[in-house]
Amino acid sequence: MADRPTRVLILGGGFGGVYTALTLEKLLKREIRDGRVELGLVSRDNYIVFQPMLPEVISGSIGLLDTLTPIRRLCPNTNLYTRGVDKIDLDRKRVSAAAGFGSRQCALEYDHLVVALGNVTSFAGQPGLAEHALPFKYLGDALALRNRVIHTLEEADIERDPEARRALLTFVVAGGGFSGVEAVAELNDFVRTAAKAFRNVEPEQIRVVLLHAQGLILPELPKSLAEFAQRLLMKRGVELRLNTRLHGGTADAALLAGGERIATRTLVSTVPSAPNPLVAALPVKKEKGRIVVGPYLELPDRPGVWAVGDCAWITDAKTGEPCPPTAQHATREARCAARNIAAAIRGGEKRAFSFTALGKMGSLGHRSAVAEIFGIKLSGFLAWWLWRTIYLLKLPGLDRKLRVATDWTLDLILPPDITQLKTEHPEGIRREHFEANEIIFREGDRGDWLYVLVDGEVEVIKHLAGQGDVTLRRLCAGECFGEIALVSDRPRSATVRSLTSVNVLAVDRDAFHSLFSNLPPLRGFFEQLIEARLKGTKDEMM
Amino acid sequence: MADRPTRVLILGGGFGGVYTALTLEKLLKREIRDGRVELGLVSRDNYIVFQPMLPEVISGSIGLLDTLTPIRRLCPNTNLYTRGVDKIDLDRKRVSAAAGFGSRQCALEYDHLVVALGNVTSFAGQPGLAEHALPFKYLGDALALRNRVIHTLEEADIERDPEARRALLTFVVAGGGFSGVEAVAELNDFVRTAAKAFRNVEPEQIRVVLLHAQGLILPELPKSLAEFAQRLLMKRGVELRLNTRLHGGTADAALLAGGERIATRTLVSTVPSAPNPLVAALPVKKEKGRIVVGPYLELPDRPGVWAVGDCAWITDAKTGEPCPPTAQHATREARCAARNIAAAIRGGEKRAFSFTALGKMGSLGHRSAVAEIFGIKLSGFLAWWLWRTIYLLKLPGLDRKLRVATDWTLDLILPPDITQLKTEHPEGIRREHFEANEIIFREGDRGDWLYVLVDGEVEVIKHLAGQGDVTLRRLCAGECFGEIALVSDRPRSATVRSLTSVNVLAVDRDAFHSLFSNLPPLRGFFEQLIEARLKGTKDEMM
Repeated sequence: MADRPTRVLILGGGFGGVYTALTLEKLLKREIRDGRVELGLVSRDNYIVFQPMLPEVISGSIGLLDTLTPIRRLCPNTNLYTRGVDKIDLDRKRVSAAAGFGSRQCALEYDHLVVALGNVTSFAGQPGLAEHALPFKYLGDALALRNRVIHTLEEADIERDPEARRALLTFVVAGGGFSGVEAVAELNDFVRTAAKAFRNVEPEQIRVVLLHAQGLILPELPKSLAEFAQRLLMKRGVELRLNTRLHGGTADAALLAGGERIATRTLVSTVPSAPNPLVAALPVKKEKGRIVVGPYLELPDRPGVWAVGDCAWITDAKTGEPCPPTAQHATREARCAARNIAAAIRGGEKRAFSFTALGKMGSLGHRSAVAEIFGIKLSGFLAWWLWRTIYLLKLPGLDRKLRVATDWTLDLILPPDITQLKTEHPEGIRREHFEANEIIFREGDRGDWLYVLVDGEVEVIKHLAGQGDVTLRRLCAGECFGEIALVSDRPRSATVRSLTSVNVLAVDRDAFHSLFSNLPPLRGFFEQLIEARLKGTKDEMM
Repeated sequence: MADRPTRVLILGGGFGGVYTALTLEKLLKREIRDGRVELGLVSRDNYIVFQPMLPEVISGSIGLLDTLTPIRRLCPNTNLYTRGVDKIDLDRKRVSAAAGFGSRQCALEYDHLVVALGNVTSFAGQPGLAEHALPFKYLGDALALRNRVIHTLEEADIERDPEARRALLTFVVAGGGFSGVEAVAELNDFVRTAAKAFRNVEPEQIRVVLLHAQGLILPELPKSLAEFAQRLLMKRGVELRLNTRLHGGTADAALLAGGERIATRTLVSTVPSAPNPLVAALPVKKEKGRIVVGPYLELPDRPGVWAVGDCAWITDAKTGEPCPPTAQHATREARCAARNIAAAIRGGEKRAFSFTALGKMGSLGHRSAVAEIFGIKLSGFLAWWLWRTIYLLKLPGLDRKLRVATDWTLDLILPPDITQLKTEHPEGIRREHFEANEIIFREGDRGDWLYVLVDGEVEVIKHLAGQGDVTLRRLCAGECFGEIALVSDRPRSATVRSLTSVNVLAVDRDAFHSLFSNLPPLRGFFEQLIEARLKGTKDEMM
């Protein structure tokens, strides 16, 4: 055992994973320096996101990178593997990580494994949400939401059709928990302030809606604070739709459970989270998809395997209650697991986990917040000041503290930023969802996409002089449409409408041309299809 | 003529376009307010990029958004159309702009048209550059380069193969003009400072190379300043390769004109620019791809059509020399064109364009620069201080000035930011280029891509026990390979090597599965192909 170091491998770069590494670096300083212990951390990103400040990225009041702290700076003595985890093999004590450049796999062996993989966003079971709703969990999500809001304002400014304008200026957030409320508050502030820079957008045309399945938002807080938050949001112009559940979405509408639809181009859903597929695949005991651990945060049947954070099912040693999936808990669990791992490596007593949350806070934007700290209820400016102070102190890294403090100072005097940062590559292939009786494209539109029907049924309609709208054909799963405009570079020759609820794959012009012009069998297929359809159309027109 | 406003439409959101709009807003204030004149500006982005500060985005010493100024804030009385231009119809005096949400076209009519479309990056004719070289012109390019540098450091930190490591830690910039020199200086500073946060990267392993086709960099400057810049770059560790031309690139090498290859994962090319395709398509007189205008910046045969900036061929009225494509000239041309348009609209005398550049400056990073201002040569710290002061004054918008000044102040005391911001969507389909005798993938690699051969020839090789490497087959244009690993989810069953120089389309796992599982004819094609190949392989193995 003395001839090779003890290897501790941590999976996940959130609060749980990073604080485990950070604490182990402190506790095992000498062992790491002497080469007796090796720490490894696998994380998809090379930074940790400070989630509480994510909503402020929407409005740009915090700089894009300032909510992020590089893991290397926090844990200088840990080997960081910036890649995704592919597979966890508990029996062979080995983790495979995805390749970086090139395609070589990277296999990591361990003596102690800490699973801190959190959970993932999942819209499964809600039609159209995976395709059209914006999640709100990662930094990329906040950035995408910011860009969407600016994009809709840009379009609304030059849109003449009043109905399309209304959809562009309606913003819907589903979920009235902390993250939904903070997101809707920032979004509302941002869109109303930014709109002033747009000549043709009137403030009263803007509609910001919060959907919440229960009768009162912020169920985590005492009733009086939740009511304060509701009153404040309404005063600022947020429309509250309580006891209302989001059922699904399309490109231009939020579909509510009762059948109602709200026309919108911006649908944010903060609700759904599902176990990380890697955790789901582990052959260990779970409760509600979370890994059940013993009092020391070690798996009962797998000594040397530990779990912390949102992916772990932890019972508080004092209260006997399950621990909630919050950052406050994750950091304490991480420290406890690190202490117990250190005890396991160099001997010592393990300690059982117990922690009582210090309090709960939610920002309501624009210098207001609600908080319950050590049982004391606060709201308004004082709560907001506390919110900023506490989170600034908690933000990892001194340089980030300074940057965020500067951002906040500048934000007091400068107008909001409305630059739309388009970093996306062209899309290539995307999925779309339509409900029954929706227009997928219109005759005369510009044709930029080829559609492949994944399921459902559509009809192709053409307007013929003297005959009105004539149905040319119906198409089912596996068939495609829209290829003529892509090949001929002319506007759409017909309208396509969904007959049932349908899912399609949309392939853009570039992807279509490169793929189909280079694969002869596919080219043949499309040439025949187009010839047949053009001929068919002519026959029907005669 | 009095019953509808005179419409001035400006195409392009660079210095030429934005300064034309800005000047017209001032000159025609009353006419715009009274509805007698309407200003419109079409720009792909809703901001103007301040190019001189772009290199600092690489190192993060200027915040991402702080080099950008929202056009709406600069030109509050102009209708901004944030979209691409599709077509310019000079005869019908109409411009069509691409659609935003949905696919409706937007047609804009004009009385005066200002073409300020600049030029575009083009790697045409240089094999592999379009696929593998990083351009350096737009904000997205600076961001992509920054992320690439961090990514290579991340990978180098955990890469054990010394050859792969060397390629990861080699950075090549082609082009020794202002933009190449400023980029290589910032890149060199950034990579050397950032590398300190990486445990396993030694400073002496880092190689930063500047390729330049002539004998001395910065040909725009006097010889002594260029020599100063060369000495300084070399002192900081940049390897200068003079009289060396970049011929092409692959995923892991820069190919030089003489046949030499430098193994690298980061190849930046600042050289190539080509006329904007929209300008190329205009049926007007051109010189070197640029629109020839008269002394008033109006097209001789097309009254009411104007051109300014990099896309215009302008002869200086005093010197008779053609004007260089710089930002200094573009802003002056814009003001001149705006004055002449105002004169055309409300009567008045037009003035011919003439301007002598005030000077030239190039930042060398890390508190040094070279400058020639009113004929005086400056270098080192003083030039750098001037560079910062002058560009800070020129940066449009007071809030940006304040933000950049703050960034620069913080940058003096804080470590560089090494967070890698991955905002890209999964790629779907990408193009790749290989020279002859390169491995496209190796037996045993993870299989994430299906390849379609666009041109050239490859061979498929399998290692068989007792027989060594056996060539299974050769493939030509239109054929595909790599499908077995994608379908079976197993590692690559064979190695594929290029026999000639080849171009391929690579389709990723997700795109492959969604496309081919939903289009029955394609599924049939691939099922047959895989069956035949698996059978073939077995036969050969027996």
